[in-house]
Amino acid sequence: MRVSVIGGGTVDEATAARARSVGRLLGERGHVVVCGGLGGVMEAACAGASEAGGETVGILPTADRRDANEYVDVAIATGMGHARNAMVVMNGDAVVAVDGGVGTLSELGFAGVFDRPTAGLGTHDALGVEPVDTPEAAVEYVEAAVD
Amino acid sequence: MRVSVIGGGTVDEATAARARSVGRLLGERGHVVVCGGLGGVMEAACAGASEAGGETVGILPTADRRDANEYVDVAIATGMGHARNAMVVMNGDAVVAVDGGVGTLSELGFAGVFDRPTAGLGTHDALGVEPVDTPEAAVEYVEAAVD
Amino acid sequence: MRVSVIGGGTVDEATAARARSVGRLLGERGHVVVCGGLGGVMEAACAGASEAGGETVGILPTADRRDANEYVDVAIATGMGHARNAMVVMNGDAVVAVDGGVGTLSELGFAGVFDRPTAGLGTHDALGVEPVDTPEAAVEYVEAAVD
Amino acid sequence: MRVSVIGGGTVDEATAARARSVGRLLGERGHVVVCGGLGGVMEAACAGASEAGGETVGILPTADRRDANEYVDVAIATGMGHARNAMVVMNGDAVVAVDGGVGTLSELGFAGVFDRPTAGLGTHDALGVEPVDTPEAAVEYVEAAVD
Repeated sequence: MRVSVIGGGTVDEATAARARSVGRLLGERGHVVVCGGLGGVMEAACAGASEAGGETVGILPTADRRDANEYVDVAIATGMGHARNAMVVMNGDAVVAVDGGVGTLSELGFAGVFDRPTAGLGTHDALGVEPVDTPEAAVEYVEAAVD
Repeated sequence: MRVSVIGGGTVDEATAARARSVGRLLGERGHVVVCGGLGGVMEAACAGASEAGGETVGILPTADRRDANEYVDVAIATGMGHARNAMVVMNGDAVVAVDGGVGTLSELGFAGVFDRPTAGLGTHDALGVEPVDTPEAAVEYVEAAVD
Repeated sequence: MRVSVIGGGTVDEATAARARSVGRLLGERGHVVVCGGLGGVMEAACAGASEAGGETVGILPTADRRDANEYVDVAIATGMGHARNAMVVMNGDAVVAVDGGVGTLSELGFAGVFDRPTAGLGTHDALGVEPVDTPEAAVEYVEAAVD
Repeated sequence: MRVSVIGGGTVDEATAARARSVGRLLGERGHVVVCGGLGGVMEAACAGASEAGGETVGILPTADRRDANEYVDVAIATGMGHARNAMVVMNGDAVVAVDGGVGTLSELGFAGVFDRPTAGLGTHDALGVEPVDTPEAAVEYVEAAVD
């Protein structure tokens, strides 16, 4: 399946490490990582997936696909700015949120709008988000929810 | 100024009455109501603004501007579906949220992204939302925040 | 009705004068001018409509509604870049094209997609565009086509 | 490189065969086919690319990626309707147009907006489109233009 990994564009090392673990686990289990294509959690998740030989899709706010981080396999330029957040969520079968600020909050709202099962690692306590404590639990949650 | 009024598309009478009061107060004070153009909180806020002689703008998810509720003065079709939530917030100077579900949550995230002062009446307890108890307090909050 | 006036963002004086006449005629007859909100044909058409007391709507590519030209009454920020061209056309009942380059060509395509009657003044010889010689003929054409 | 293949969503057999040849040639030469993800020219080009072992990306108007034709490897849902035409062009380095109606015309306009070299096979005689007679000539043209 495809899993949208969302979270802050600028994060500390511990958060990046968690996002990388999420990406690695998803890649190992044959899932595709979808993200917003930029830095922070997005880049870390793509890096993890790449290490595990997984595929990554980055859906960018800009009109130039070269803005994608180096671990994105398929970069999609949108030119839509922040409204592309809807597309990041829409293109996954489930969502894993790691940390994150207001952009991530908009994506958690869209996760509800598009009815995507969502695991949250240290993110907002928002409607419909299942709080989990580890990358493993996040991946297990979305796998069980989508089956 | 322009104030984006956001909230559920299907609401109970008490919520509709509160949204109507928000719209009426905004209209009385010369502010333009921006909303998503459909029913529930959107329609009630437009109805209130219209009663007070205020102007209303409805930014619709569909490609047909005739989908707007009857109290919308300027209907804008987008054809973008839920991604138009970004535009609803972007086109106000401040935000008042009344109740609301996951669509509203996505808009509260965008309120943070676009740095719009936001008052919340019985809505999500989300990052950056100032909880208020009455329509009057909501309007006073956004007036003071934008000045 | 609403008429989308499209054309180049940077134009010579003769073209601007024609766009201004189109806007003035539309305003005199009670029609709303919809445009892309920026300069050139867009600004000239809005200026003409304003002279005649008509209403103008500008649908901008940027996320900041202050980017609208000074003759726009209702500015709508989209943050969608060039993709907002679809919205410019979608929000009129008919289209008048004055001159214009490739952006205008994309809008003429959308005029066909959304089935909007279209008069062309010195613009592309594209599918579905009715070539006319004067602003008066352009306005008469779209009035007759929409009735 | 990536080449956006655009054209009608419902086409006759001869047109489909030409689009299929374009896709096959692109796949053989290691290029990725980007398209709107639906039927007609889009499906034929993807089928051709797939036969040649090439990769295909489909950028859909709907919010459901399962709407993609069966030859799309990476389906991207947008939920933006016709405005996604901008994204189809933006995500290629060059464009090949095969036949097509008004939707294709909007894409040819965007090809100019985004400055993408464009070869046209029996399509609109539009600004910036290089008319070619065969799929081979189309592919050679865009390869030479992008180098």
